[in-house]
Amino acid sequence: MRPKVVLFGDSITEECFVEGGWGSALANHFSRTADVVLRGYSGYNTRWALKIVERAMDGICAVGDQPLALTVFFGANDASLPDRSSGFQHVPLLEYQGNLRSIISYFRDCWPATKIVLITPPPIDEDGRLRNPFEDNASDLPERTNDSACAYAKACLAVAAECNVPVIDICSKMQEYPDWQKSFLRDGLHLTAVGSRMLFEELVKKLRDLALSLETLPADQPLYSDIDRKDALKTFEK
Amino acid sequence: MRPKVVLFGDSITEECFVEGGWGSALANHFSRTADVVLRGYSGYNTRWALKIVERAMDGICAVGDQPLALTVFFGANDASLPDRSSGFQHVPLLEYQGNLRSIISYFRDCWPATKIVLITPPPIDEDGRLRNPFEDNASDLPERTNDSACAYAKACLAVAAECNVPVIDICSKMQEYPDWQKSFLRDGLHLTAVGSRMLFEELVKKLRDLALSLETLPADQPLYSDIDRKDALKTFEK
Repeated sequence: MRPKVVLFGDSITEECFVEGGWGSALANHFSRTADVVLRGYSGYNTRWALKIVERAMDGICAVGDQPLALTVFFGANDASLPDRSSGFQHVPLLEYQGNLRSIISYFRDCWPATKIVLITPPPIDEDGRLRNPFEDNASDLPERTNDSACAYAKACLAVAAECNVPVIDICSKMQEYPDWQKSFLRDGLHLTAVGSRMLFEELVKKLRDLALSLETLPADQPLYSDIDRKDALKTFEK
Repeated sequence: MRPKVVLFGDSITEECFVEGGWGSALANHFSRTADVVLRGYSGYNTRWALKIVERAMDGICAVGDQPLALTVFFGANDASLPDRSSGFQHVPLLEYQGNLRSIISYFRDCWPATKIVLITPPPIDEDGRLRNPFEDNASDLPERTNDSACAYAKACLAVAAECNVPVIDICSKMQEYPDWQKSFLRDGLHLTAVGSRMLFEELVKKLRDLALSLETLPADQPLYSDIDRKDALKTFEK
C-alpha cells in the first residue's frame, strides 16, 4: 500500500499543481513511492480550516492507516488586515496561534504516527498586492502588508517550537534573496514557479530530516532496472 | 469523501507530474473535486502490468468505495520490436490485446462503477528514438517504429470497441498535426509539454462525455465565494 503525503492549506496549497507548482514537483519526486494528496482551500484562514478539517480528511486513509507526512500551511489569509479590503479573512494573531495548536492536536489525535510539517505564510509584496487586488479595493492601501505576514510567520514559528513540530520558515527564507518580491511572488502573495521551486526544495529537505526520502522509502513494484532480463516473470513471482 | 481518478500505465504515466505534465494538469483541474492517483510503472508492458495490478491498486479505495475513473495507458513498450534493442519489453500483438481485455475485466470485477478510459500508445518518431536510445543500440535501427506503434494503437481501439470502453486515440490525434514528431514527443516516445497538453485536453473531454466534470462533481467544502459574508461560521454549520 503506497504511503501518503497530505498537503493541507489555503490557496497557495490549492494551486500547487499548477505548471511549475510545488505540489506537482513533490508528486513527481515521489512518483513511485508516495501519493501526494491535495487538500487546499482557497481563501481559508485557520478559523475556517478548523471547521472543515475532519470532513476534509475523510477517506484519505483506510482505518488503521496514517499518512507519512502532512503539511499545514495557513496564515496568509489570517494576516489580512482587519480594516482593509480583505478584512473578512482576518484572524487575530493569538487566535491564529490557538487555531494552529488545535489543528496540530487534531492530527496528533487521529494520526499519531504522521509527521506534521508547518509552513509559515510567505512574505508579502505590497506593490504586487495593489496591482492585483482580489476584492474591490478603492483605497491605495494593500489589504495585506509584509509586516503583518512576518508577524504571523513568527507566531507560526513560536507554535512550532512550543509543539515540537518541524517548520519551514518560507517567509524568512524568501527574504534572504534580492528581488524576492518579484522573483518568488506572482501577485504579491501567491508563488511563482521559482518560489514554488524553493518551497519544494525546502520541503524535500525537511522530509529527508524526518527520514522520509527516496533513499528510505521503498519503490512501489519492481523498478524496470530490477526486472530479471533472463526471466522477467520470475521478478513478479517474488 | 473526495472521489478519485487513477492513472495506470507505463513511463508516460509515471512521469505525468513532471513540469507541464498531463497528470499535474488533471490534478490542478480537479484541485477541489477529485484526487488524481498516480500508478505509472516505467518500462512496463501489459504482461507485467497484469502481474502487479492487484498490488498496485491496493489501498487506493476503502472497502466499498470505487474510483470515479481510471485510465489504462499501455502499449508503447509492448510495441518494441522483438529483434531490436528493447526486445525484452516486446509483447506480441494478440497477447497485448488479450492482456488489455484481462486488465479491463480485472477492474470491472473489483470496481464495477468505475469509468475505464483506454489510451492508445502514442506515435513514434524514429529519428527521436535513434538520438535518445534507452539501451545500448549499436545498430542504426530504432528499437520502436511508428508502424508498430500504430498497429498496437489500432489493436487497442479494437479492444475498446469490443469491450465497449471509451478510448483516446492519441496516436491518430497527434499525427493530424504537422511536425507531430518534434512538437508532441521529446525523445521520439515520451510527451513534450505540448503533447501532454493535448492528452490532458482529450482526457478532460472524455471524462466530460462520461458526466465527470467540474460542472457535475461537487466541490469539496464551501468555496470561498459561497462563504456567508455576514456570518462565515454559519456556512460551516450546514
